[in-house]
Amino acid sequence: MNQKGLLVIISGPAGSGKGTIVSRLRELAPFDFSVSATTRKPRPGELHGVHYYFVDKADFESKIEQGEMLEYAQYVGNYYGTPKKPVEDALAEGKNIILDIEVKGALQVKEKMPEAIMIYVLPPDYETLLARIRGRGTETEEVIQKRMNEAKNEIKTFPRYDYVVINRDGGVDRAAQDVLTILSAEKMRTLRNADIPENFFR
Amino acid sequence: MNQKGLLVIISGPAGSGKGTIVSRLRELAPFDFSVSATTRKPRPGELHGVHYYFVDKADFESKIEQGEMLEYAQYVGNYYGTPKKPVEDALAEGKNIILDIEVKGALQVKEKMPEAIMIYVLPPDYETLLARIRGRGTETEEVIQKRMNEAKNEIKTFPRYDYVVINRDGGVDRAAQDVLTILSAEKMRTLRNADIPENFFR
Repeated sequence: MNQKGLLVIISGPAGSGKGTIVSRLRELAPFDFSVSATTRKPRPGELHGVHYYFVDKADFESKIEQGEMLEYAQYVGNYYGTPKKPVEDALAEGKNIILDIEVKGALQVKEKMPEAIMIYVLPPDYETLLARIRGRGTETEEVIQKRMNEAKNEIKTFPRYDYVVINRDGGVDRAAQDVLTILSAEKMRTLRNADIPENFFR
Repeated sequence: MNQKGLLVIISGPAGSGKGTIVSRLRELAPFDFSVSATTRKPRPGELHGVHYYFVDKADFESKIEQGEMLEYAQYVGNYYGTPKKPVEDALAEGKNIILDIEVKGALQVKEKMPEAIMIYVLPPDYETLLARIRGRGTETEEVIQKRMNEAKNEIKTFPRYDYVVINRDGGVDRAAQDVLTILSAEKMRTLRNADIPENFFR
């Protein structure tokens, strides 16, 4: 079977632990990295094509216009985004790709590539979310409340995702395994195996 | 989490081995049986509510009219079908149900219960399909050709299913495990966990 790779989008609010899950996934199974593009200046030691594609503003904006960015956003005056072509090439070669991106970016990707598998990571409950956002206790109560409100607003986008994975304390392996289970099932979707019936017609 | 049970539909052409997979699944995980209704007379030893719900023709037809049959068909003058209520009750109690039914029935169920998970079982290739349909070699070539044509026509409905599971020779355990993987993933669908975000709003 010459199946395309899977494009996996992982999102979740602060405190969901999605970053840790993504790191664990990369240890458990082969995933291709997607290198982001940015208009910010490279820092010492950062390599073009490895840490980022460093491009100038005019370039980035022309890529946006030509639909060559899967998703993008602006932070403090700079563009950051995911170029489409390297992702498409890797998928065509059968490689799986994980994008660890926030909700707005995730929805942009899904619009351009509807075959993307959207996974939302959540802590098991409110108390765990709060405890994780409190973290090491170095933030003021005001900052914590602001982050909690941001997290809650983000959680409202949950229905736009295909799957939910619960990340329990100490349960990163289980959560990573849940993601792999989702991917195994997705590989069996008839949509991703549309060529199979042909084998029986001759 | 008070999740509803999963309704799993398994179909596949003659020679797919879906019956064996379903038997293996019942050994591996708890599934509720769905008892069919029929208008044919009970045979000696058959019990109402166990082997079938034995009903008369007027009863069956009134159930069809009132939308109380998930699917039904006629064979040699008798009705056979799946009553909706016991299936809905079992799902509401969180029990999973497998229906081993042919394509027409499967599509009727999916129309009435879109949350049903439709799995199509296929042999790995044409040669295996042919070998299984030849079986013990007791059939004439004409009968075999007829069955192959029926199987091929059935396989055309493949895109109407959600998932495909390949049943390799000697691979019943693997195929049953594939079905369980699909069900594990389906349990993580946001659609089936729509109440989770509420946990974070208080």
